[in-house]
Amino acid sequence: MYHFNEDTITALATPSGVGAISVIRVSGPDSFSTVDKIFQFSSRLCEVSSHTIHYGKIIDKKNETVDDVLVSVFRNPNSYTGEDSVEISTHGSPYVTQRIVELLLAVGVRLAEPGEFTRRAFMNGKLDLVQAEAVVDIINSSTEASLRGARNQLDGILSARVDELREMLVNVSSLMELELDFAEEDLEFVNLQDARNRIEKIIEELELLLETYSFGKVLRDGVNVAIVGKPNVGKSSLLNFILKEGRAIVSEIPGTTRDVIREDVSIDGVLYRLFDTAGIRLAEDEIEKEGVIRSRKAVSDADLVLFINDVESKFSQDTYDEILQLKEKSRVVTVLNKVDIGDDSAEYDAKISAKTGKGIDSLFSELKNKSIGSFNYSERSAVVTNIRHRDALIKSRDHLVEAVRSIDDKMTQEFIAVDLRNSESALGEIIGKVTTDDILNNIFERFCIGK
Amino acid sequence: MYHFNEDTITALATPSGVGAISVIRVSGPDSFSTVDKIFQFSSRLCEVSSHTIHYGKIIDKKNETVDDVLVSVFRNPNSYTGEDSVEISTHGSPYVTQRIVELLLAVGVRLAEPGEFTRRAFMNGKLDLVQAEAVVDIINSSTEASLRGARNQLDGILSARVDELREMLVNVSSLMELELDFAEEDLEFVNLQDARNRIEKIIEELELLLETYSFGKVLRDGVNVAIVGKPNVGKSSLLNFILKEGRAIVSEIPGTTRDVIREDVSIDGVLYRLFDTAGIRLAEDEIEKEGVIRSRKAVSDADLVLFINDVESKFSQDTYDEILQLKEKSRVVTVLNKVDIGDDSAEYDAKISAKTGKGIDSLFSELKNKSIGSFNYSERSAVVTNIRHRDALIKSRDHLVEAVRSIDDKMTQEFIAVDLRNSESALGEIIGKVTTDDILNNIFERFCIGK
Repeated sequence: MYHFNEDTITALATPSGVGAISVIRVSGPDSFSTVDKIFQFSSRLCEVSSHTIHYGKIIDKKNETVDDVLVSVFRNPNSYTGEDSVEISTHGSPYVTQRIVELLLAVGVRLAEPGEFTRRAFMNGKLDLVQAEAVVDIINSSTEASLRGARNQLDGILSARVDELREMLVNVSSLMELELDFAEEDLEFVNLQDARNRIEKIIEELELLLETYSFGKVLRDGVNVAIVGKPNVGKSSLLNFILKEGRAIVSEIPGTTRDVIREDVSIDGVLYRLFDTAGIRLAEDEIEKEGVIRSRKAVSDADLVLFINDVESKFSQDTYDEILQLKEKSRVVTVLNKVDIGDDSAEYDAKISAKTGKGIDSLFSELKNKSIGSFNYSERSAVVTNIRHRDALIKSRDHLVEAVRSIDDKMTQEFIAVDLRNSESALGEIIGKVTTDDILNNIFERFCIGK
Repeated sequence: MYHFNEDTITALATPSGVGAISVIRVSGPDSFSTVDKIFQFSSRLCEVSSHTIHYGKIIDKKNETVDDVLVSVFRNPNSYTGEDSVEISTHGSPYVTQRIVELLLAVGVRLAEPGEFTRRAFMNGKLDLVQAEAVVDIINSSTEASLRGARNQLDGILSARVDELREMLVNVSSLMELELDFAEEDLEFVNLQDARNRIEKIIEELELLLETYSFGKVLRDGVNVAIVGKPNVGKSSLLNFILKEGRAIVSEIPGTTRDVIREDVSIDGVLYRLFDTAGIRLAEDEIEKEGVIRSRKAVSDADLVLFINDVESKFSQDTYDEILQLKEKSRVVTVLNKVDIGDDSAEYDAKISAKTGKGIDSLFSELKNKSIGSFNYSERSAVVTNIRHRDALIKSRDHLVEAVRSIDDKMTQEFIAVDLRNSESALGEIIGKVTTDDILNNIFERFCIGK
């Protein structure tokens, strides 16, 4: 899988648009010699030390200055990609950066594919595959929790755990293979019962890791919350209060289309996407019907449903029944609003006043309980946040379950060995020890150009 | 005017949004000591050399890693601002950059005002005022011409010319002042006729410089072209052909609202903004009337009018007459289209076929002639592109004209000296030798934060 890159690539690395400065990246064996052709300064890039910065001018073929720039030099292997690399820091004009990229293309540099810098970093062993994927998660992070989840992966904590399990598996597996090699000599290396125990132990560990996924998913993607309630129970004022108490997130990404009724808020560092639904009870009116359909979909898709009642209209059993047709009870948080003006004898998960703020903390705890539960997360815990990793862990576990069945069914060791190899290779896929171009293409095409 | 900056400032320097990397700038006397508080690496920024890059981690108060970053160090006076400066290159996530800026604010760094980095560069003598203004023009440049105009100013060519003229003025002026000092002793230092000649010479030079403005404005802002013609003369096909032959410019700036009928194209490096008008003849229909009003405004506002006819309907004298009510003749380019299927005996500035491309070059020359004329521009010519500079040059010239009149009217030398001083100070305003907080605020508030 490993290959040396013979060509040198370039791309704009900073967000496109107008700013104070922009940065163009160049990486590959000819980085220095090609940039030297368009960059005038007191020396030559080929001759300067790594991790130094040089002020000079980018000049075009007519010897006219295109821009004054700072050029940073990184010598292989001490760069992001592990190759010789250059970063050109220009005035932040789309026209200027475009001109400079064109000049680079004219001297033989190629435009990078999406994620190609990180792919090269992976190829050159600077990052494993989990870490490479974490780079995208860091870039897309919008809350403390999502950043922490991504950092956890970039720091190699999941990779290390997966590698440990793979090691355990290799130990069982290699004994099994050894036995096969000497099968004709009737030697017995493996106590099958012992192997079975060791496989069961690995299955158990894989299950524990898989259990972190629902928490990891919250870390990474946040929690979708549908807010349901009859008119005038104070849905809007509650929404506004939450946005004020939490930390409302304003998307800085141009062109993001946002659902009109969606508001993002970070509470204790976790992202909650609040969907204010129109109502889920069947209506006569055609336009309202459309709203009801969308509201029901929001409830079905939600991770949590916030069911709002107030002391005036009391608990709305009919609406609650409809919610329970769409969502399991453990995912519904029942709320009584307006406790500043009265009370209600029914049981609620939280009693609040969106007016005075009373009880909001208990509502927040309830949201947390029902989304990430009591998961005991420390910064050093391995957490699965990525569906690709989860799927590979499931595949790995299923092959082990198969192996146990084969042992119990007294199948020949060839069968068991195949199961173990498949399980091992599923784990290898996660960190990229076993990989295919398809897997890599899938992963890196989600990157932006320049990363 | 000069002042030492006692505080240290920070801002995101790259365009906001998601990208591979983002850069946060820090500048001021405490740059190293403050960044050292949140940046962990093998040494301390206070101890490393200028123009070196260091890999490490930004950590928050809980000692958790916020991001792996590269930190570039610039020691005063060898930085953009002339102060100690740091650039932090992070993963390109708005959330990550926001976290890091918050950490910097928490250790005593202040958020920069718009243009404050460049303002400090000006205060510290790294750039004069014309050069500082050129930085914005470079960032906003979208064609070769606009970039060249801005580079010309950043390279100090206009500044040098203004300084020369100011020097000439100071020579006359100081003799005049000397004479005043010794007025009671009845010595005569100045031959008034000689002084008058020298002032006239400076006026001439100022006029020459002012004449470059119409060209400079084209360099900087491009040319607005209104396209007028009856239906079916081939306006759309001509527009499409021009966009294909020239270089259509797609605005990369998010949020730019563009006139629906406007297309930008670069021809020989000059920006032409083409406005396709609906028609300028008075219509009956209410909706059409609105279109006519807008079209007439486009013609009035345009630098050039492209008046299209075709061989089938021949020259449309009535429309031409209406155009000439709105625009002087020298600003109208008459075009005959569809010469592939016939000809017309009338005179045209260009005869073309938007179908075959015939004659397009002559049309392009005509556009160039009528917009920038025969101005003989070399890269080393001083060119005025900025209305502030033009206004100051006019002010300077007018004070000299006043001085000449005072000499002719045999006014006392006190009057003449005041005129000369005012003229000199108007020149000083251009490059920033004479300046006020108001002028500076006006200039720098047009900058983005981070520049």
